[in-house]
Amino acid sequence: MDSTTEKQLHRVVIVGGGFSGLYAAKALGRAPVSVTLVDKRNFHLFQPLLYQVATGTLSPADISSPLRGILSDRKNTSVVMEEVADLDPARQVLVLKGEDLPYDTLVVATGVSHHYFGNDQWRETAPGLKTIEDALEMRRRIFMAFEAAEQETDPEKRKAWLTFVIIGGGPTGVELAGAIAELAYRTLTEDFRNIDTTEAQILLLEGLDRILPPYDPELSVKAAESLANLGVTVRTKTLVTNIDNNVVTLRHGDHTEQLSAKTILWAAGVKASGMGQVLAEKTGVALDRVGRVMVEPDFSLAGHPSIFVIGDLAHYAHQGDKPLPGVAPVAVQEGEYVARLIQKRLQGAPIPAFVYKDTGSLAVIGQNAAVVDLGFIKFSGSLAWFTWIFAHIYYLIEFDNKLIVLLQWGWNYFTRKRGARLITGEGAMAQSAEVDADGNYRVPAGVK
Amino acid sequence: MDSTTEKQLHRVVIVGGGFSGLYAAKALGRAPVSVTLVDKRNFHLFQPLLYQVATGTLSPADISSPLRGILSDRKNTSVVMEEVADLDPARQVLVLKGEDLPYDTLVVATGVSHHYFGNDQWRETAPGLKTIEDALEMRRRIFMAFEAAEQETDPEKRKAWLTFVIIGGGPTGVELAGAIAELAYRTLTEDFRNIDTTEAQILLLEGLDRILPPYDPELSVKAAESLANLGVTVRTKTLVTNIDNNVVTLRHGDHTEQLSAKTILWAAGVKASGMGQVLAEKTGVALDRVGRVMVEPDFSLAGHPSIFVIGDLAHYAHQGDKPLPGVAPVAVQEGEYVARLIQKRLQGAPIPAFVYKDTGSLAVIGQNAAVVDLGFIKFSGSLAWFTWIFAHIYYLIEFDNKLIVLLQWGWNYFTRKRGARLITGEGAMAQSAEVDADGNYRVPAGVK
Repeated sequence: MDSTTEKQLHRVVIVGGGFSGLYAAKALGRAPVSVTLVDKRNFHLFQPLLYQVATGTLSPADISSPLRGILSDRKNTSVVMEEVADLDPARQVLVLKGEDLPYDTLVVATGVSHHYFGNDQWRETAPGLKTIEDALEMRRRIFMAFEAAEQETDPEKRKAWLTFVIIGGGPTGVELAGAIAELAYRTLTEDFRNIDTTEAQILLLEGLDRILPPYDPELSVKAAESLANLGVTVRTKTLVTNIDNNVVTLRHGDHTEQLSAKTILWAAGVKASGMGQVLAEKTGVALDRVGRVMVEPDFSLAGHPSIFVIGDLAHYAHQGDKPLPGVAPVAVQEGEYVARLIQKRLQGAPIPAFVYKDTGSLAVIGQNAAVVDLGFIKFSGSLAWFTWIFAHIYYLIEFDNKLIVLLQWGWNYFTRKRGARLITGEGAMAQSAEVDADGNYRVPAGVK
Repeated sequence: MDSTTEKQLHRVVIVGGGFSGLYAAKALGRAPVSVTLVDKRNFHLFQPLLYQVATGTLSPADISSPLRGILSDRKNTSVVMEEVADLDPARQVLVLKGEDLPYDTLVVATGVSHHYFGNDQWRETAPGLKTIEDALEMRRRIFMAFEAAEQETDPEKRKAWLTFVIIGGGPTGVELAGAIAELAYRTLTEDFRNIDTTEAQILLLEGLDRILPPYDPELSVKAAESLANLGVTVRTKTLVTNIDNNVVTLRHGDHTEQLSAKTILWAAGVKASGMGQVLAEKTGVALDRVGRVMVEPDFSLAGHPSIFVIGDLAHYAHQGDKPLPGVAPVAVQEGEYVARLIQKRLQGAPIPAFVYKDTGSLAVIGQNAAVVDLGFIKFSGSLAWFTWIFAHIYYLIEFDNKLIVLLQWGWNYFTRKRGARLITGEGAMAQSAEVDADGNYRVPAGVK
């Protein structure tokens, strides 16, 4: 295109390179618009597999793809690696830390982060799982716990090192608990001389009356059975009332209990990213209880038709009795819908209302153990596990060389090895640098 | 074995899980001795491929194997993840941070680290490449430089972001320069909108009169030609006299010159790890100019026949006119030799003196470009490249699931993609967090 045409192009700015933002960018990449994708990271992260990085099966690069690489053949698309500082809807300008970015249409897809329900002091002891850095920190803690147990001579302290508490029985919590159980009861059994890794306790805590609450109750039962077979202790209707000095206080009905555990992982809640607050202040849009943005049926903001919010940050209440869940298939469909809407709007044509096509729910528990709910059929076991594998590989391959992941899994399947169980990062040079005199984690400065 | 036998077992303590220490442990793993391998990390690192992590081709786990996993079937062998605090040769005790470890035979194999020749203040601006963390920091800086150049509007500053200076023309420097040139001139060419990555300047600086000084001069010429073809500017007889504020001061004969470069990588020198100093103090052994330990013909210390030093930390001057070089094949052969010696000594049998069998020298410059010197034959180009690939895969496969590496390379070969070009780690969330107002790196606290 020559520069005259380029000047007239409608400018779409997309904030966030997760599933919804990236699929919107991909869909607009061949349209007669100019697209700018803003992200503070230089890669798209395949979040559904992040727990496999946290538990030593995959490497960060296996589940990440550079945004520039994915979009390199979209010549109308620029990628800007920057943080958003502010928004000026009147002037239609997105203010980045380094520059101002004018837009004709703005698509905000910045997602969610951990939510500690007002107990942000738990963050250090019980880290969550949203970023690559989170996953590497979890990996470090999990494998460090076995190392520390191997060197600990006091039986009580050793038990605490071999106790893993996962808070939250959604898909992430279930997947983490299953993967840690496989580590302790299968992968690591021959590796230590002083400890028996099969003495490890893996507890999965859920406040509601069953794990995987959004799924069909039948699958919750199957998942709980599979977890029990792997050696995970599942406790439902159990609330965490305090975490202090590596002691978790639980409440189950009227019963209160304390558990010593050196490894506590948070998979319990999410809240909207900071952009939700910025949008509320600048446009007056309403937020829900966890800060998600209440969107119109077409994902635009009330009174601001040129601003859209999609993905986990959007509270979409126009289909069913609950908002659409924060899962990848929803995000992908929203991104593609908004991309189509923007193009049609430029042509002055209406498009049908958004309808989410439920592609089913999947959760993996361990090798050969998963649950699948495709709506018309529900199943579990080996077949579910293979369904899960192929569903994930299908998405991964769209981007990059992620056939490697399939091969890595194939290898692990036959050898039960895990190659990525490295303890790395700041201060990971030795256990003594990590654990203070009381045997507690000394969290390096700056690690959130 | 029952506990009575176990009590009588000769205790071998090995410090360091690099090539020499690990191969010694493997060789002793089936002998009637008790072996303890001490390392501050929980994995063996295949250092010859570390530059591929630094330049975004491989992931850390692709070139690392958990020590416990490698040694899990050696039931006489314990792995202790700890740092060494001190040594007491009179009591035959190695003092760890957490405990005392008595030994009958001690094998020290703690290797070397970077050497800035008295200019330790250069470390922050010009990081070296020894650990996984070093490699991830290099990777972050290299890819961040392209991102910063894309956003920079001042032509001078943009040029500095696109200038990469590699100091030191040994194998690591040559491999880094070649890999960065491939990134700039091949992999990334379609990824940016404001910059032309082929305008990047990659400079390789060497103080001596040719690159790859330990190799045959003919191969140095071939390597320099291949680098020039890739777009690398090679400058020999060029000394770095200062690095300050991202400006490198060079001296070539009487000529002095200053270069602005935001990415400066150190591949120039090594010095012995701290254990050399501890050994010198406690046993009176002599050290060479860079702190390596002067060993006897059987790698023991003069007057201390139960202490051995092997690998890069050893200065072995009993073969040829120079000490044996600090490369993996030397380390492997030394480790295996000492393991054999320890076993024979227990039987009261002498073994022949150590003779290093030169397996040849290899350096890779880029896709299809490498130099190989097998002693009886020297060659370069595609055949050398394939020789290099298979030599490395052969070693890697001995350990673990590193067939993955071959597949990754195969994929890269045909697509020219690189999947691992992630910017991660402390403060990698956005460029603005990394670069201060003058456009210099703000190094996060605690990063060495």
